[in-house]
Amino acid sequence: MSSYRINFLPDEKTADVEAGTTLMKAAEKAGVYINTLCGGKGVCGRCRVKVTNGKIRADKHSISLLSKEEILQGYVLACQTKVVSDLEILIPPESRLEEAQILLDHNPVDYSSPEKIALHRVPADPMTLYEPLTQKIYMELKQPSPEDNVSDMDRIIRELRKKTQYPGFEISLRCLQGLALKLRKNEWKATVTLARHNGIRRILQIEAGNTSDRNYGLAVDVGTTTVVAQLVNLKSGDVLGVAGSHNLQARFGEDVISRMIYACGRDEGLNPLHQAVVKNINQLIKTLTEDKGIDPREITSIVAAGNTTMSHLLLSLIPCSIRVDPYVPTVNVYPQVRAAEIGIGIHPEGILEIVPGIASYVGGDIVAGILACGIADRPETRVLIDVGTNGEIAVGNNEWMVCCSASAGPAFEGGGIKHGMRATRGAIEKVVISEGRVQYRAIGRAKPRGVCGSGLIDCLYEFARHRIIDGEGKLHPSPDNKRVIEKDGVLNYVLVPGNETENGEEIVISQSDISHLIRSKGAVFAAIKSLMDFVGLKFGEIETFYVAGGFGSYLDIPKAIGIGLLPDIDRSKIQFIGNSSLMGARMCLLSSHTMERAAQIAKNTTNIELSNYQPFMDEYVAAMFLPHTDGRLFPSVDYGGI
Amino acid sequence: MSSYRINFLPDEKTADVEAGTTLMKAAEKAGVYINTLCGGKGVCGRCRVKVTNGKIRADKHSISLLSKEEILQGYVLACQTKVVSDLEILIPPESRLEEAQILLDHNPVDYSSPEKIALHRVPADPMTLYEPLTQKIYMELKQPSPEDNVSDMDRIIRELRKKTQYPGFEISLRCLQGLALKLRKNEWKATVTLARHNGIRRILQIEAGNTSDRNYGLAVDVGTTTVVAQLVNLKSGDVLGVAGSHNLQARFGEDVISRMIYACGRDEGLNPLHQAVVKNINQLIKTLTEDKGIDPREITSIVAAGNTTMSHLLLSLIPCSIRVDPYVPTVNVYPQVRAAEIGIGIHPEGILEIVPGIASYVGGDIVAGILACGIADRPETRVLIDVGTNGEIAVGNNEWMVCCSASAGPAFEGGGIKHGMRATRGAIEKVVISEGRVQYRAIGRAKPRGVCGSGLIDCLYEFARHRIIDGEGKLHPSPDNKRVIEKDGVLNYVLVPGNETENGEEIVISQSDISHLIRSKGAVFAAIKSLMDFVGLKFGEIETFYVAGGFGSYLDIPKAIGIGLLPDIDRSKIQFIGNSSLMGARMCLLSSHTMERAAQIAKNTTNIELSNYQPFMDEYVAAMFLPHTDGRLFPSVDYGGI
Repeated sequence: MSSYRINFLPDEKTADVEAGTTLMKAAEKAGVYINTLCGGKGVCGRCRVKVTNGKIRADKHSISLLSKEEILQGYVLACQTKVVSDLEILIPPESRLEEAQILLDHNPVDYSSPEKIALHRVPADPMTLYEPLTQKIYMELKQPSPEDNVSDMDRIIRELRKKTQYPGFEISLRCLQGLALKLRKNEWKATVTLARHNGIRRILQIEAGNTSDRNYGLAVDVGTTTVVAQLVNLKSGDVLGVAGSHNLQARFGEDVISRMIYACGRDEGLNPLHQAVVKNINQLIKTLTEDKGIDPREITSIVAAGNTTMSHLLLSLIPCSIRVDPYVPTVNVYPQVRAAEIGIGIHPEGILEIVPGIASYVGGDIVAGILACGIADRPETRVLIDVGTNGEIAVGNNEWMVCCSASAGPAFEGGGIKHGMRATRGAIEKVVISEGRVQYRAIGRAKPRGVCGSGLIDCLYEFARHRIIDGEGKLHPSPDNKRVIEKDGVLNYVLVPGNETENGEEIVISQSDISHLIRSKGAVFAAIKSLMDFVGLKFGEIETFYVAGGFGSYLDIPKAIGIGLLPDIDRSKIQFIGNSSLMGARMCLLSSHTMERAAQIAKNTTNIELSNYQPFMDEYVAAMFLPHTDGRLFPSVDYGGI
Repeated sequence: MSSYRINFLPDEKTADVEAGTTLMKAAEKAGVYINTLCGGKGVCGRCRVKVTNGKIRADKHSISLLSKEEILQGYVLACQTKVVSDLEILIPPESRLEEAQILLDHNPVDYSSPEKIALHRVPADPMTLYEPLTQKIYMELKQPSPEDNVSDMDRIIRELRKKTQYPGFEISLRCLQGLALKLRKNEWKATVTLARHNGIRRILQIEAGNTSDRNYGLAVDVGTTTVVAQLVNLKSGDVLGVAGSHNLQARFGEDVISRMIYACGRDEGLNPLHQAVVKNINQLIKTLTEDKGIDPREITSIVAAGNTTMSHLLLSLIPCSIRVDPYVPTVNVYPQVRAAEIGIGIHPEGILEIVPGIASYVGGDIVAGILACGIADRPETRVLIDVGTNGEIAVGNNEWMVCCSASAGPAFEGGGIKHGMRATRGAIEKVVISEGRVQYRAIGRAKPRGVCGSGLIDCLYEFARHRIIDGEGKLHPSPDNKRVIEKDGVLNYVLVPGNETENGEEIVISQSDISHLIRSKGAVFAAIKSLMDFVGLKFGEIETFYVAGGFGSYLDIPKAIGIGLLPDIDRSKIQFIGNSSLMGARMCLLSSHTMERAAQIAKNTTNIELSNYQPFMDEYVAAMFLPHTDGRLFPSVDYGGI
């Protein structure tokens, strides 16, 4: 079979592939990653690329979803177009899936200081709770004598009983092998690494001499979009660094549903997804350790938090039954595993704990969030709202907790929106319309490439406030507003003209985008309202609403209320907390007590299945208006004062 | 370098080896195993072979320990003689280390009915104690519904809580992987394998359908000389088979001391010993399963009992500090390990438990023996005596237990005795001298090859009774007795003339053999006496003396008393119990409660270190006489009545 060379621009990366290979696969081979939402099914249109040289054989699949103008310019869908000659392919910015670091430094939430937001979490004595999952205990043992000739292991356990409060210890065989020589060659000075394991402590490692200063842990937020990790000094509790990257599973589908379809729709579908996230974590470990003189084997524990699907894929558990009614995961409270067992390169006996989840669509990321906010620790009733492709809501206090999840669609993460994108460089994160002029700010002060969640919320609010759209979200063309234009029979609002953007094409918000956003905000609000009604509370009775999510690094709370996404209450009661999943994971890493609390919360939280819950359906319909069909719910929202 | 062919007779096995290779190594390469006691150091003389064809270069090392007659006949030591030409080598019977099955069927102790000897062990309700280390629980689960959509794992644990009394469960990752599909493809019918693990139950395996009838366990006695295993049906408790083989470590040294020297005297000395015993166990598994239609992966648990050195070697733990003062093992209470971790081929998650030991020279075999006799279960004070290279003694009841170990030498296992041998085919196990005639019985009704422990005790007793030796064990040549002859300046008693033996050479008991035997019996008796004095009891206050050991399959109790090995008490109070180590291992396999008892016994038994204990030294000197220097201790023994 013939082989052709494909050159991908702008990176100038090439791959030699056989005739008939799709451009998507060729890109993968070249090490270039193209966006996809649908997992390569040709239905999302995110993998649009431009053929700048060479011949392709276009058919209806390869040009579906494209405008006539785009087709004339040489655009095709990479997942549907097969190679029949040497080619030069330009991947436009919006189709690039960047493997680069996500912009952590831009983020106003300081991952290294979770205390900033966990104000309400005031344990009686914080030091008694500081007890990392893995601890190093240094000991100088008494040399054996005829009067005291207990076994080496008993000598160590005797010392551990003196130095700790733990009732029981177990040991791995590897630690015993070679132990006798190690102790005798090093004057009976040793450092023992203990790991929490069920009710007792497991001895993971016995090292010669005093290594107790060198014990590290990793907290990981395994998000559907990004994977973020913190390296923590387990002796001091200090965060030594934070790094993030796009979830490498994205090439198999952008959201959890398309990844489940990928995993379940073919033989060996699970493994590539599993391997991808393991690779993510290993790369982050490398990034975090290599410039600090830390050997990855000095990392003895990892706590990961993610939604139920991400947690299953990380452990290589089939996620198929999560997707179909009655939505059953394999497990909610995950077993502790040796990280090495799934290919994560830390200490060979190092442990991996996954924050337990509540149900198929309320996962460990939410439990971690509940821990981070301290909702379950205090008598006041508080709410956590996490807005992603699903909007997950939890309400409760130290006595009870109820949660639910509504399918909101990926709009607030930039998905399903023509120029929507994640909160990375070039994403418009803030929009103000004033006297007909559009002001915007793009992340990294770059030329804009698209709009992320917080920018889209701003747009929706500004459109409503300026009557650019009506209560149902309909765009109204008017001679006063040159920005509302018709293109291929669809109305669009031109947010940024082509001369200001990175690729020279204008950035628009389409009528369809606005409908998506209203459906998303409606679903989230309806879920909040349904849950409040279920527990019989009014919004005013809630002490604090914590809002986490993938909007980006910035969320304008008044505007989020203004579009009817968040309830209309005192703004000071609403706090945007960014990545609470990572924070909760770190808290578990640093406190066995918190890890145990996580399991209690996961077990004791009641999950309301909204897909079978009529009051939610009614609320959803009622919320499909700006701000809401029942204006009394949003008394302070007034679009009148332009 | 030149290569030569060595042909070993009588098996006609050949090996091609380089010049300079020792005959010992050549034999190993040919798959022929030659006896050794010293581990190839040229000091024990057990590897005597005859060069029947070809040229050797004999030096003082290769002929040391041989008589002039032997040298003239072409005998050399295999471990000290190097190859310089093609050779034909005859391995005489006494130098052969047979890998054949040990003679289990000859053994009057029925391994399949431990109850026969454990009469005193009467648990309140035997059925509550029958709870094997690994259990299979079959369940038919309710299919998930919107009203009942707990995770698959929670569904299983809910059912386990209904069907068992266990407080907690944990699961291995491997069991979760693929679980969702397995349950859904098999109508929610599954069999869960549980293993005792610390205080909780670990789920090792989840199979589709009902496999609860197929769950097997293995009890193993890892003896220094032989390794014996029983295959047990864990559902019924039935013993399905028993098999034994010589410990393959024998090629590195016959006793524990020479094996420790081998393991510690060179780099990589430990691994060959470890691998050898693992091979033993894997071979026994094959033997026990292959004709029964059982897949080794259906074995889910193993309990092994052995002395402390054997237990360490099985787990690949360095035994070096066991050998030197203050005699410290790495561990006494061994961790549960996955059998696969050390290369034992059962179920990949199957567990291996090792019966805990008390000290370096009172190991898990003794604890297993204590369990088998039920000494620790009843208020009456009883004694267990295990005679091997060490004589181990335990005395106690359900409130206290004290033990000790004395170095007795390998005489009663046939070691260090010119024509001594283990209790295998051709070993003389019974000797009666009557009216000057010697009557003997050899195992397997074969032509005699040597004398095993029980035969040696008989000889010593018969020699004393017939005044062939005096109280100090000196042979007295007399014209009346043609059997006492002098050879190379040493007195010998001709037990069997050459025309009756397998190899045509006469079997003799030498003066040196008799001295060895007296030292051995003296050490064992001194240990018993010291221990009794330590706890302040007289022999008469003991309800039962259980005697285990490597004497062979037969022990004449009155004769053992007659030589002063066992105390002079009512014969009916002494029971010979054979392999109590295997029996105790089986009891642990079948009862988690017993396994826990084992750890309690190991922890709560006081070990008296005789090597530092003056009263023992005094007793030892006093016991170097037949039956004893203090005749009042053996009032019923009377050599007078010929």
